[in-house]
Order: sequence, then structure tokens, then C-alpha cells
Amino acid sequence: MEKLGLLYEGKAKRIFGTERDGVLLVEYKDSATAFNGEKKSEITGKGQLNNEISSLIFASLKESGIDSHFIEKISAYEQLVQQVSIIPLEVVTRNIVAGSLSKRLGIKEGTPLKHPIVEFYYKNDDLGDPLITEDHVEVLEIASPQELTLLKQKAIKINEVLSNLFSKLGIHLVDFKLEFGKDSNGEILLADEISPDTCRLWDKKTNQKLDKDVFRRDLGDLTTVYQEILNRLRGETTHV
Amino acid sequence: MEKLGLLYEGKAKRIFGTERDGVLLVEYKDSATAFNGEKKSEITGKGQLNNEISSLIFASLKESGIDSHFIEKISAYEQLVQQVSIIPLEVVTRNIVAGSLSKRLGIKEGTPLKHPIVEFYYKNDDLGDPLITEDHVEVLEIASPQELTLLKQKAIKINEVLSNLFSKLGIHLVDFKLEFGKDSNGEILLADEISPDTCRLWDKKTNQKLDKDVFRRDLGDLTTVYQEILNRLRGETTHV
Repeated sequence: MEKLGLLYEGKAKRIFGTERDGVLLVEYKDSATAFNGEKKSEITGKGQLNNEISSLIFASLKESGIDSHFIEKISAYEQLVQQVSIIPLEVVTRNIVAGSLSKRLGIKEGTPLKHPIVEFYYKNDDLGDPLITEDHVEVLEIASPQELTLLKQKAIKINEVLSNLFSKLGIHLVDFKLEFGKDSNGEILLADEISPDTCRLWDKKTNQKLDKDVFRRDLGDLTTVYQEILNRLRGETTHV
Repeated sequence: MEKLGLLYEGKAKRIFGTERDGVLLVEYKDSATAFNGEKKSEITGKGQLNNEISSLIFASLKESGIDSHFIEKISAYEQLVQQVSIIPLEVVTRNIVAGSLSKRLGIKEGTPLKHPIVEFYYKNDDLGDPLITEDHVEVLEIASPQELTLLKQKAIKINEVLSNLFSKLGIHLVDFKLEFGKDSNGEILLADEISPDTCRLWDKKTNQKLDKDVFRRDLGDLTTVYQEILNRLRGETTHV
């Protein structure tokens, strides 16, 4: 697969064209960023870990009937994906109060929610990716009310599958961020990545954070905990 | 009516008990505050203007079949209201993009919305009165989904009545903030105040701001524009 021109460079990934029509190459970077890019670091091996973790999770979702843009992992740092037009929303699903929700509502981190909730954040670095309401999504003409309902349904379904997956690995899926895109037929497809960069994952026994909060909050070595997630996903760790 | 003990002092009003069971006395203060109390000023006559404006608006709503806690104005700075337990939500209805919505979505102030939208802010000074979603309202156990639907319906109905009222006075009702309370029967009742402190009011011809943005943004003399609103509400100004 020949890597063609760079189409887009984000904080954690580069997207290239390929010789296959409608197929893009995603290269995972070793960059770690937080707080809208205010905190930055290069962490050797992070890109490789997230590429592999995200590939395993997309494959696992596929087995549960949930399609995504993911096609296949082609090298340590690279995967092929279907080209989609990204919907500029961060779709966040939460099972346990943490992070910005804890700050916003003044509720202690770790408080379980009675049922999962889905939030929308406007993907806009200049505006700091603000929380927006469903009305705001409509005002911004990002998605129709029908599409928004579909996004929520997909997020809730994915939450069920992933919560179950991680639970078997001895991990609480606290919250996670999804992005979706539209394919050439206008169909909404799960996109971006699913990794410890985009999920909060707490060890069930110890409550140890096995996600990017380790970097955000200086809690230890990022690659060690990302490797732990990968090991568990591969079934290489006894954990429960 | 004897004024009994001070029950509550807010940024713009003091609430006292009275000898009548279930009846409170609201005293409007001359204080102007903005940005969660960071900007403050004493403006002689402001309390009197808001007391009179709010009384006229509540009376006007009553004529349109919309009940509120308002009973009667009893002096320049005072009105009697029915005692309610305040629901800790700021219910904001918007017709035109302005203020925090403009900043949040990156949309130019003055852009008309295709239809009115209702937002909920969590009344909590320590947290800076954050925007919250309907799910957050449920998580905080502030209101049930049914009550939330009722609050939105009431806000939209009040918006219709007030937009029409102000339109006849040559004024665009850009947005406004309502608070609601529950009476002793658990019925939801419109409460707090409706004044240029809680509404954005723009002159239709000149776009001049006739509301607290004059104070927030140092655009001129607050009492002059509040007096203009009062004059128009009294029918004392030719304006259209």
C-alpha cells in the first residue's frame, strides 16, 4: 500500500491518502497532548500501542456487529481506514463521574451514574471544544435531530459492548469519546480511534488509572499502563 | 405589611419574611453585578427601576394567563411574592445569538436563530453557573424529565408573550433568563424577576442595548436605558 500525500495532521495522528480510492492511511504519532494542547510530550512507543489497541477494539466491535471506518492494521504505527467526512462532534459517553463532568457539576470523581449519559462537545480547538446542547448542534447545522438521535443510540450501544469487553478484563470503562463520520453514501460510521487516549479506564480492583489521565495528572509512566491495556486485550495478563 | 427577618440576600435582591403565611417581601437592591460577581457597582435608582419593570412584566404575563410568584408592588423598592422553593436552574431562552452563546459557538452576535432555544444553567456560584445538559439536570436530581419538559414549555410560552410585548414597544427580546420555584403543593411557578438585568433588549431601529450589557460592557448609563424600558412599558414613549 503506497502512502500518498499528507491530508491532515492532528495532535495524535497523521492521515494520508492511498492508491486505493476511498481508503486512507492513519499513522499514530508518539505525541501526547492534554488540555487542548497546552500540555505536550513525545512518548516513544505510544503511537504503536494506540494503533494496536485501537485496531483490537475496532475488530472487537465489528464482531459485535458495530461497523467502523477501520479496515486493517498494516504496520506498527499504521492502519488503513475507510475515508469519511468527520462530523465535528466529540460524542462522550459516561458511566462514572470523572474529569470535566466532576468539575462542571461539583460531583466527586468516582460517583457512579444511575445510567449512562451521552454528551456532545463541539470539535473546535479555537473555542476549546465546548460542551454544547442538542439545540446548539442544530444551530451549528452539524447534524439533524434524527442524526443526533442515531449518534446517541450508537454511543449507547458501543458503551454496552465496550463496558462488557473491559469488564471481562478487570477494568471499569468510566467514560470515553467517540467521533463519527459520514461515508460517501451519507451513512454515519464510527471513526477516529478508541484507545486509552480517548477512554478513562480504571482497574476494578485497585482503581488504578490505566489511561491518559496518567499523563494529564502526572501519575506515572504512560507506556506502562497503555501496555497493560494492550496485554489484557491480547489476553496475556491474569487480572481478575 | 410588616417586614420580618431577612431570609436571603442575593446579588440584586433581599428576601424577607412577612406576617402573612407563605408570603415574602422582595426588596430590590441598587447593586449591579456581572461576571459571577467579579464586576460590581452601586447604581442609585436601579432597584426601584427593576422593581417597577418586573412588576409590570409579571402583571402583563398574568393577563396572558401565565402565573408567577408576584403578588403586588408595595413600595418603590419592594414587592410581595408567594413563597416558593427555588429550582436551582437558570432557564435561558434565546431568539438571537448574543453573549455566552456567541462565544461558545463562535457565531456572530446578532445572528437570528431559526427558532427559539432553551438552555439550562446550574445555579451554583462556586461552579460559575455552568451550562448543563438535560441529563446533567437529572444527574443532579434538580428536576425530573417531566418537570424539565414543563420548564421548557413554560419558557417557550413566556418567550412568545414577552417577545410580542417588547416588539410592540420597538424592542427585540434577544434572550432572557427565568427562574422557577415550587409552591407548597409542588406546583412549578415562575419566580425571581424579569427586568433588563435578566433580559437582553435591543432597540429595533437603532440596535441600542437597553439592558445590563450597558453595565457589563461599559456602554453608557444604566439608569437611562432602564428608565427607557420603564417608559415604554408604561406607554410613555413614542418609539415605533
